[in-house]
Amino acid sequence: MSVTRADVQAAAARIGPLARRTPVVVLDGDRVGLPHDVALKLEGMQHSGSFKVRGAFNTLLSAAVPPAGVIAASGGNHGAAVAYAASAIGVRAEIFVPATAPAAKQERIRRYGAQVTAVGATYAEAFAASVEQGNRTGALRVHAYDQPEVVAGQGTVAAELAQQCPDLDTVLVAVGGGGLIAGCAAWYTDSLAVVAVEPEAAPTLHAARRAGEPVDVEVGGIAADALGARRLGTIAHEVTSRYVDESVLVPDDAIRHAQRVLWEELRVLAEPGGATALAALLCGAYVAPRGSTVGALVCGANLDPASWSVLPETGV
Amino acid sequence: MSVTRADVQAAAARIGPLARRTPVVVLDGDRVGLPHDVALKLEGMQHSGSFKVRGAFNTLLSAAVPPAGVIAASGGNHGAAVAYAASAIGVRAEIFVPATAPAAKQERIRRYGAQVTAVGATYAEAFAASVEQGNRTGALRVHAYDQPEVVAGQGTVAAELAQQCPDLDTVLVAVGGGGLIAGCAAWYTDSLAVVAVEPEAAPTLHAARRAGEPVDVEVGGIAADALGARRLGTIAHEVTSRYVDESVLVPDDAIRHAQRVLWEELRVLAEPGGATALAALLCGAYVAPRGSTVGALVCGANLDPASWSVLPETGV
Ligand SMILES: Cc1ncc(COP(=O)(O)O)c(C=O)c1O
Ligand SMILES: Cc1ncc(COP(=O)(O)O)c(C=O)c1O
Repeated sequence: MSVTRADVQAAAARIGPLARRTPVVVLDGDRVGLPHDVALKLEGMQHSGSFKVRGAFNTLLSAAVPPAGVIAASGGNHGAAVAYAASAIGVRAEIFVPATAPAAKQERIRRYGAQVTAVGATYAEAFAASVEQGNRTGALRVHAYDQPEVVAGQGTVAAELAQQCPDLDTVLVAVGGGGLIAGCAAWYTDSLAVVAVEPEAAPTLHAARRAGEPVDVEVGGIAADALGARRLGTIAHEVTSRYVDESVLVPDDAIRHAQRVLWEELRVLAEPGGATALAALLCGAYVAPRGSTVGALVCGANLDPASWSVLPETGV
Repeated sequence: MSVTRADVQAAAARIGPLARRTPVVVLDGDRVGLPHDVALKLEGMQHSGSFKVRGAFNTLLSAAVPPAGVIAASGGNHGAAVAYAASAIGVRAEIFVPATAPAAKQERIRRYGAQVTAVGATYAEAFAASVEQGNRTGALRVHAYDQPEVVAGQGTVAAELAQQCPDLDTVLVAVGGGGLIAGCAAWYTDSLAVVAVEPEAAPTLHAARRAGEPVDVEVGGIAADALGARRLGTIAHEVTSRYVDESVLVPDDAIRHAQRVLWEELRVLAEPGGATALAALLCGAYVAPRGSTVGALVCGANLDPASWSVLPETGV
């Protein structure tokens, strides 16, 4: 089971204007101590605040949605994205969240019009309950990352970036379960270097490469709510084994620093997972070859601005 | 004394890549109850967090900067912008701020490398002191809005927007002393409708139009730190009398609502002055003619995210 460039192309045609064309802004390298600029794809401005609606739309539009609607498990960006997409298309959505998910996140999903069902103490329990319920009702399942339609949908962010910045030769992408990077790598194939970035505290792709197959890892750290899948998806493993050459890890401090730089230089507020790709450049975990034209995805912005504390540690 | 399209064009050539090309994103009308989309020019992503660096760069590059450097009065965006531009070009900057300006804002100006001189209790006193000091030292003065180089520099945001969105027929612009709208109107002349938007609590342009000349007004309200000039500039009066047909006022509540919509729909954090132009559309103070293609400037993003309180009042 794999996903190809043609699948991503078909997804882009299917989704059309339902996903927002998010802008790109250039961060000046000399403002942040880098020898090159960085083209940032501001995908946190996407509907529901992350790229996740792309995969959700593509899945919902690839099949006839049954009367029971769609079903997914996630208290985070995936849940919000499926709820948003279902409401935009006019179908029912039921989102299973662990009962431990913060009330504000459950409320956000409800505001998009979905039915929220809180079950169990962990994501795994909520997921299992959603599968059971889906089998019972016949609702269309939308996996958070390991489903071909989802991966192809996420890849449309790369197709869009390629139009906006045709000259890039390197793109950094954050990895959780790997749906996003798989879609991007399926699109770009070998036409440029796709670099995988993960928190040290949530190294699913890194571990899969070492083991030669997806394996369970311990996950934690500040980006866990977005990048904290316990195991790389099988599609992601297949696609990234072929098309992703570099996998780097960044400490949580570097992620926090990248969040601050995004705010201080660009007034962009990104969640930890959204700042992780840039972090690899800023902390030197990934050093682009001389003369590279470099891009990075800022893939999510779902955080409460009021929880932000501005510690002016950079030179702004 | 006026400013023309040619002046704006010359400013754009002079400033070149020193100002960031800020992105445009489209807000879907059907998400916010409007019959049309709105192209938002995200100028809060500009260096120093507002369009003000454009005028600062153009002024600094239009004259030989004397050894005493540049001098300006402002505890707000203008002060930060002049400090940023001076540092980027490598000249000294002295910024006069009222001693009552918040410590955080003074600190921000200092971080850009400027000397901050706190004088008096009001902006008027700080301004008077800066003029005196400028006369003494020979430093180049950069007015916050009523100086041809400043106005022409601000107009480059319109020149850029015209490239990015050639099909607009209406652009909404917030007004304080009027440098921004004068630059934009000088660029667009009669080629599209430039609409002036001001808080009810700070109606300088509105009052000038009624009186037939710039007059002092009482200023206050939540956008006062950006839009709270007491009187429209003479250049702004001259240019806008010719090229701006509509002037509308919005209540502070509408500005706050626009800030929320920007965050909830786009994850864009704008300061009150930055959200004012959009507010006019959302609250109906300005209704675009049927079939219009509408743009608005989001002109500033200098606020402390931690001070943000998310009150989910919109339908997100
Ligand atoms: C903001 C953000 N970035 C990255 C990811 C990782 O995506 P994937 O699980 O497809 O690797 C997620 C997943 O939720 C996310 O929300
Ligand atoms: C964010 C923002 N918007 C608008 C304005 C108004 O600009 P002008 O005084 O040129 O009308 C200012 C002025 O400081 C500002 O900071």
